[in-house]
Amino acid sequence: MSEPTAAGTPAGGLVTFTTDFGDASPYVAAMKGALLSVNPSARPIDLSHRIPPQNVRHAAYFLAAAVPYFPPNTIHVVVVDPGVGSARALLYAEAAGQRLLAPDNGCLSDLFDSVDGPAVVRQLREPKFWRPTVSATFHGRDILAPTAGHLSLGVDPAELGPIVTTWQRLDRPRPVVGAERIEGVVEFVDEYGNLLTNIPASMLGAIAGGPVRVAGRDAGRWVRTYADAAPGECVALVSSNGVVEVAVAQGSAAARLGVGVGAAVVVE
Amino acid sequence: MSEPTAAGTPAGGLVTFTTDFGDASPYVAAMKGALLSVNPSARPIDLSHRIPPQNVRHAAYFLAAAVPYFPPNTIHVVVVDPGVGSARALLYAEAAGQRLLAPDNGCLSDLFDSVDGPAVVRQLREPKFWRPTVSATFHGRDILAPTAGHLSLGVDPAELGPIVTTWQRLDRPRPVVGAERIEGVVEFVDEYGNLLTNIPASMLGAIAGGPVRVAGRDAGRWVRTYADAAPGECVALVSSNGVVEVAVAQGSAAARLGVGVGAAVVVE
Amino acid sequence: MSEPTAAGTPAGGLVTFTTDFGDASPYVAAMKGALLSVNPSARPIDLSHRIPPQNVRHAAYFLAAAVPYFPPNTIHVVVVDPGVGSARALLYAEAAGQRLLAPDNGCLSDLFDSVDGPAVVRQLREPKFWRPTVSATFHGRDILAPTAGHLSLGVDPAELGPIVTTWQRLDRPRPVVGAERIEGVVEFVDEYGNLLTNIPASMLGAIAGGPVRVAGRDAGRWVRTYADAAPGECVALVSSNGVVEVAVAQGSAAARLGVGVGAAVVVE
Repeated sequence: MSEPTAAGTPAGGLVTFTTDFGDASPYVAAMKGALLSVNPSARPIDLSHRIPPQNVRHAAYFLAAAVPYFPPNTIHVVVVDPGVGSARALLYAEAAGQRLLAPDNGCLSDLFDSVDGPAVVRQLREPKFWRPTVSATFHGRDILAPTAGHLSLGVDPAELGPIVTTWQRLDRPRPVVGAERIEGVVEFVDEYGNLLTNIPASMLGAIAGGPVRVAGRDAGRWVRTYADAAPGECVALVSSNGVVEVAVAQGSAAARLGVGVGAAVVVE
Repeated sequence: MSEPTAAGTPAGGLVTFTTDFGDASPYVAAMKGALLSVNPSARPIDLSHRIPPQNVRHAAYFLAAAVPYFPPNTIHVVVVDPGVGSARALLYAEAAGQRLLAPDNGCLSDLFDSVDGPAVVRQLREPKFWRPTVSATFHGRDILAPTAGHLSLGVDPAELGPIVTTWQRLDRPRPVVGAERIEGVVEFVDEYGNLLTNIPASMLGAIAGGPVRVAGRDAGRWVRTYADAAPGECVALVSSNGVVEVAVAQGSAAARLGVGVGAAVVVE
Repeated sequence: MSEPTAAGTPAGGLVTFTTDFGDASPYVAAMKGALLSVNPSARPIDLSHRIPPQNVRHAAYFLAAAVPYFPPNTIHVVVVDPGVGSARALLYAEAAGQRLLAPDNGCLSDLFDSVDGPAVVRQLREPKFWRPTVSATFHGRDILAPTAGHLSLGVDPAELGPIVTTWQRLDRPRPVVGAERIEGVVEFVDEYGNLLTNIPASMLGAIAGGPVRVAGRDAGRWVRTYADAAPGECVALVSSNGVVEVAVAQGSAAARLGVGVGAAVVVE
């Protein structure tokens, strides 16, 4: 059996998957199969299949926090796609040195914003890179995964379809900066219950170290890392991606403060 | 260190895993290790470890929906095995161009049915392809994973054991076709709460587009894809694997209709 | 694009991940990216990301049950790290023929104990193998994953940092052996609800086959495997890793007996 080799292809054939499929249904498996049927030497990498169902906002946050760590030209397939089968486009984008294949629903917004916009965006139009029959409800399997396979074999992205200059953007909440006060929101709750906000630590300036309130409640003193807090203590810190974070050492800040995504955060 | 290479072996060393182990216990890891200890160049691919515990019926549906998308000769290890250690056999099977290693408990039924039967089925009898010590309760680690390793190195399947001509079959529910009516059941509920039935859309004929009832309740109008429905609307459509599906746009049909696997479905 | 090749590197570039990150946050993805950015030919393998949050005891059990099955010199990255950013060290260890990168918090204890101690332990001190900027809260991404990348490229472990001769150990519960009685505890509950105890079957001697009680309740008769029990029957057996196990056939012993990790187990 003659096989294409990974050497020489973009990022050695690496293709990541980020979906809201969960882990129990056959959809993840079918996508991996559809990729590998095009390029048996591709290397599928799971990022997460636990994006909350159809939560494009969550996917956008996730991708901006994850994909920049990958080698240049890694291919990332994103399937959080409530509009599957509708007129929404499917996109190929290059941003942060990465290659992304995703529905045009805003899920790439945070990544694009983090690098002042994508290098190029194309609309997928060339059916020769798709499965012969395309269903109305599973474009991840029928279009995105096989397209990733062809890209991983070295197909020129220009062959996928025309450059486009407009795409969906999400209204990402922006912190409101006052004289001695910044108002933001909880943007992500991780599985420890840590609250990640939309306030970059670099924005704090003179109020760095000032009191932090979440949904009106005091978030405790500032520490450098979780271990600087007593077990069960609620504290503020700078997160591993550089934003204001509120955590409970060896516990859940989300549970302690009774808050989730969207809760108001104030630093004074 | 001299390593075997993936090139030249079946499907480039691809070995998939489908189990009911869940994601928190060390069993999945031990199986991957047992595979890689035989062939360090094998490429393990997770399909799912969230088959409901000991639910052979679910595994059968899952496999038929997933494995046909993989490249020819991909090796699939299946461990949903309530009869482990009993007299039940372990099988090697070729079907749909794939190679499968699984307990003889019916979990391959749906796949076999989808292609009018397997090309060949063998019983695993040759201990030289197993771990030296075989436990009574974990044949996935001790027999199936190492056998997959040897197959991925190019061992001839004929060496694994003798051809058998009988194996366990599951009574899969079949739709009942009347003059102007088809009666079926919900066969699978995915993680969005979509209801996948056992009624192939190709079977609808003259009643295509006719009213669908689930557990006696109206499932709503027919649409082509989820996005054609209003958010929260219950609709019928043709699923990505070609059967009658009932879904709630941006919601859960299972929750809305209060039904699960086995619920009666009627199209008139 | 010139890529390093996996051939010739330890265990063909295999790098496993065991974390308590869960599957929904971007931390797992960021770690895989940080590894692959150092060595695009590395082969990341998920062991589990469902170690209960900050449960070092669970991680220790998990690792001892999983990593010995991997090929020699496989690299294992462990991130269950409540002390991240504190003065706790990060370790490189060789044990059971495996290479491990983990925080010094006892998570390697069970593995070390299983082989009468590690072959070598080093403290990670050499920042040239880390990401240029190291956060206070995510050493998995910033130190351990890139170090694994360098190891997988063939870096000599001696370059990582000095040998150390002390490290954290967990007080693992030991069975108490009496004349005609062994007292132990439930050490792990798997996702079927099977109870794995800390009593090696090899220790039973004359009381092999004797009555087993869990939290004072009779665990039922001894069987060789689950299928020897009637559905729903509670039984005792020797687990696939050689300890006394209590299970309910096609059910959950944890639910039936209302017990979890730490419950008293007595064999008489």
